[in-house]
Amino acid sequence: EIVAAVEGALADGPLTGKHVLVTSGPTHEPIDPVRYIANRSSGAQGTAIAKALLALGARVTFVTGPAEVPPPQGVDLVAVQTAREMLEAVQAARDVDAGVFAAAVADWRVASASEQKIKKDSSELPVLEFAENPDILATVCASDDRPALVVGFAAETENVIAHATAKRARKGCDWILANDVSPATGIMGGSENAVTLITAQGAEDWPRMGKDEVAARLAQKIAEALG
Amino acid sequence: EIVAAVEGALADGPLTGKHVLVTSGPTHEPIDPVRYIANRSSGAQGTAIAKALLALGARVTFVTGPAEVPPPQGVDLVAVQTAREMLEAVQAARDVDAGVFAAAVADWRVASASEQKIKKDSSELPVLEFAENPDILATVCASDDRPALVVGFAAETENVIAHATAKRARKGCDWILANDVSPATGIMGGSENAVTLITAQGAEDWPRMGKDEVAARLAQKIAEALG
Repeated sequence: EIVAAVEGALADGPLTGKHVLVTSGPTHEPIDPVRYIANRSSGAQGTAIAKALLALGARVTFVTGPAEVPPPQGVDLVAVQTAREMLEAVQAARDVDAGVFAAAVADWRVASASEQKIKKDSSELPVLEFAENPDILATVCASDDRPALVVGFAAETENVIAHATAKRARKGCDWILANDVSPATGIMGGSENAVTLITAQGAEDWPRMGKDEVAARLAQKIAEALG
Repeated sequence: EIVAAVEGALADGPLTGKHVLVTSGPTHEPIDPVRYIANRSSGAQGTAIAKALLALGARVTFVTGPAEVPPPQGVDLVAVQTAREMLEAVQAARDVDAGVFAAAVADWRVASASEQKIKKDSSELPVLEFAENPDILATVCASDDRPALVVGFAAETENVIAHATAKRARKGCDWILANDVSPATGIMGGSENAVTLITAQGAEDWPRMGKDEVAARLAQKIAEALG
């Protein structure tokens, strides 16, 4: 009834009947009620991937940090702030056919986050102690009921293929979409991306293209792998 | 000619011929090329103040950090990221009739900011050392050629009037617009504000009202003071 109506509204395509989890955006890690640590992810690539999956007929659960780019229409939206909230949302949604982990999750949180605004008047500079955040990709890959296909991302500034290949093995995921975000490329915050897909079969360089085209090509690959 | 054309396009009002500097938004302080420290200022109040000043005929120089709210049309726009960049822009623009310092400037920057992305692989957690940022409001107030009227802001969570009155004296500014941003008020990130104007004559409580109304009332007060 309601479910059927919603499903009827979805695009029909090679991913019809499949459910894909996509994470996107940065995470924000609080220092105190008014300050936080963030990273420069706009959410553009993750949002484009969700749209491309929807276009092929998939149901998409979209777990997003506070991104600049608005989330796509038609997804099951879960909005989070911190890495720990993102892990919780991902765990709750892991009963999917594939997971694409495009979020730029903060590696560390502030262990000593304050309930009150830290006053400037205090005579000493604040000291921030850090704690390691959960590794969402590795946690999902290590779970007994992991999705059949898990795709991670690697933003590298040097030795892209070597680092991304090592990351694929370390995390235990199926594919890594690696990109070179060194400032000279202009990719970080831009509309294009130059990626290499790392699989068990090796590395496949994709030509530099728009983030929408990267998304369409990845969605097509996912459809082939699940089909 | 061009100047005359631009001036002709400005609203005519009690601030015609006056030039006001407004700072707005948060500042972002880099940790490394992809991570930064931010604060939860949306830029809504500063943007509303700039619009209200324009509506009364003022020329407005608008120095803004990376805010969520887009900057108003018709200002002389200077976009900055860090507190030090904001100070530099303010120093360059301080030949004005009045200055309204609504930006939420970071008190501290990361002294040990890294040129390279800090890798998670490194076995130890990062240690962030902080350095105090320049105090933009106090620096402007202490300068020989300070604007005739300097308005600061105080975001407080307790003892609002006492803290803001002390801040006015400490910074050497003419007025402080103080607000209570404790979470219970819902003001931080909301569309309303409840402010108290602190001057040499004492404290004037304004009723809770929209940020646009706060801006209009402040602009009117500025016009009276400069008139």
